[in-house]
Formats: sequence, C-alpha cells, structure tokens
Amino acid sequence: MYRSSLHDTLSVYLVTDTAGYEHRSAAEIVRAAVAGGVTLVQLRDKQAQLRDVLPAGREIRELCRSAGIPFVVNDRADLALLLEADGVHVGQDDLPAQEARRLLGPDAIIGVSAGTMEEAEWAVAQGADYLGVGPVYATASKKDAGEAIGTDLIARIRSRWPQLPLVGIGGIHQGNAAPVLASGAQGVAVISAITRQSDPQSAARGLADVCRRR
Amino acid sequence: MYRSSLHDTLSVYLVTDTAGYEHRSAAEIVRAAVAGGVTLVQLRDKQAQLRDVLPAGREIRELCRSAGIPFVVNDRADLALLLEADGVHVGQDDLPAQEARRLLGPDAIIGVSAGTMEEAEWAVAQGADYLGVGPVYATASKKDAGEAIGTDLIARIRSRWPQLPLVGIGGIHQGNAAPVLASGAQGVAVISAITRQSDPQSAARGLADVCRRR
Repeated sequence: MYRSSLHDTLSVYLVTDTAGYEHRSAAEIVRAAVAGGVTLVQLRDKQAQLRDVLPAGREIRELCRSAGIPFVVNDRADLALLLEADGVHVGQDDLPAQEARRLLGPDAIIGVSAGTMEEAEWAVAQGADYLGVGPVYATASKKDAGEAIGTDLIARIRSRWPQLPLVGIGGIHQGNAAPVLASGAQGVAVISAITRQSDPQSAARGLADVCRRR
Repeated sequence: MYRSSLHDTLSVYLVTDTAGYEHRSAAEIVRAAVAGGVTLVQLRDKQAQLRDVLPAGREIRELCRSAGIPFVVNDRADLALLLEADGVHVGQDDLPAQEARRLLGPDAIIGVSAGTMEEAEWAVAQGADYLGVGPVYATASKKDAGEAIGTDLIARIRSRWPQLPLVGIGGIHQGNAAPVLASGAQGVAVISAITRQSDPQSAARGLADVCRRR
C-alpha cells in the first residue's frame, strides 16, 4: 500500500547512472546534488558492466545514507539487495512490484513507472509505494521512454488516488517543473537536469526552490 | 570452487526462453527435451516482460524438479530467487559470480560465460562452478554473442584446469557436437538445436547419444 510518508521524500528525485560527467565521477555529482537539496536518489545504469556498477553504487548508497535520504535501484532487485538499497524502482517490463517486495521485504520502497492510466492501475494493485509518471516532456536521457505525454495523466492519477505519492519524470528541469507540481505531483524526477550540468549543486537547489515555492 | 560433481550434469544443457515455438509452449518443449535426455535447463529470456517470464519459469522449474535435473536462470539472481532456481548463469557484463553466490547461497550452481582465456581466469577466480565457453560456431539465437571462436579455447581451458566443468555453446547441434566434446567439454549447450525443432525430444536424444558415444 502506498504511504503518504513518502510525500516529502519525493520532491527532488535524482536518477543517475555511474558514468559521471566531464571531470566529475557519479559519486561527486550525487554529493553535490544532495548538498543542493535532492531528496531521493535512484541508480539507473543500463550501460555499464555490473562489476563496475557495484562499487560505484556502494559509494552512492553511502552518500545517501550519510545524508539520511533514500537510495533505490532501478529494475534489478538483486542489485538492490547487494547494494543494501532502500528499495527498487520498476518499469512495466520489470519485476512486478509485489514480487520485488517479496525479495526486498515489507519496508522496502517500491516505485513503479506508469505512462497510462491502465499502467497506474496495475502498479497500485501491485502495491506500489509511489509512481513515476511520464515521460512528461520529450527526453533524450532515456532512449526507450516513448512519446511525451504532458501533465494530464498526473492530474488524472491525482484525482483518482488523492494520497498516492507520485513524481513526474521525463525532460523536466527548473524551467518547466512548476506545471508538473501544479498538476498534483509531489515532486520531479530528473536525470540530465542535474547530472549533466556544470554545477549540479545549484541545479538541484533550483529544483528544490521550485518545489518549495509551489 | 568448481565441482567435478557437475560433470555428468552438463552433458545436454538446454537454454530456453519462454516464447515457445509453433504450436508448443516453452514448457511443452522443455518436457519433451527432458524426456529426450536433457541434463540441465537454463532459462534465458531477454524479450518477454518479467510478469510473463515468472509463471512460465515456475512451470519449467517444476518440470526440472520432477525430473531431478538442475534449473538455472540467466543473468538475474532476483529472478533465480523468485523462481527458486538451483543457480544462475552469468555473462561477463552481469553480476560477478561471487556476488551472485552471496545472494543465492553456497550450494547454488553459478555458471559463467567465457569467450577468452582472460574471461575464463576471471570466472575461475570468482568461484564459478562451471564455464559456458563460446560461441563455438556461428549462431543466430543470441544476437550479442560475437564472432565464432571454434574449439581451441575449450582445449586450452581444459589443459589449464583439468577438472573444471565446462560446456561449449553457440551454433552447436547433433552434427557438429562431437568436436566440442573431443576438445574437452563435458557437454554442449544448445538453444535452437532443441527449442526450434519439430521434434525436441528426438533432437535432445540425438545430442545425448553424441555425448554418450564420445
């Protein structure tokens, strides 16, 4: 069952791979982003070998633990177990939420991606703790993300489940985050708007400001 | 540490997805293949949604359990846990063998793919129970398999680790299996040579005969 205790946790939701950017490692980017006000970190790496993802992921998990914010892993519950993550975020093709929970336990945070009302129904029925809804805007960060769907679905999901925690995802940055929040999302999930900026800390702070001002 | 108790278990090693073929389900193909003499089944499905892989995988696991042969899952230790598999088979990009063992326990069968001597060294150092060596011949079943490498590497690995259980994989069928065994493999791993045949049982029996005659 979803929990409204996640509402504050979902304001600035960072999705990161382990690749780093320019002269910074992924851990350095996460450290800066957390200092700027990120409230949750999801590790999502579809490229790197898992032998490399593991040490980088442990470093990011430690940063999150020190900062007191949740750390979740995309897709793979096995990786989440090995990284002692707080949960897992699954897509519609991945493990069903209730199967992920069997592996990670009742206290794990299980998030599910939804791009349609039917996908949202399925996720809620499966016991998702929160939804990632999108892609709200066009995105280049996630190659399989599909067509942008705007903010309507967020409003419809909010109206159907008033207490369900949810974040918008897909092409969101400081300049276009406000309509996502106005539609009823607790927060915004971003990749490049933080990880591919020259100053990840100030990018995170900018997003945190938008969330605070709503 | 690898175990020579696996030697007999590795003679006819079936790799299957959950797609089925023509009028047969994957479980029907596995049932026929087991009746024909398959000695281990690996579930490897990179296409289907995991919500569909789970029920199909449970059916295949039950068949293997009834037949008293091991059932392993490709790549994902989380799926292996949910399917109560006997182990996992990992590629070089997947979880390192020793991390997979942390999740599945000391008795799990952990196999590792190797296409070079360096990859074999890494796998043995990581505590692989057996190796899958290839692609021996050209294959269309596995899109990311790379160039065929022939049987030389099998002979070199056999000479370096005389007791290490290993199977050849990649483009192997009844007509070209003998050189793989002659090079020192305990057995042959096949996909289409069983799963895409009109009579999977007799295809498996043909391969079992080749293994028995060596």
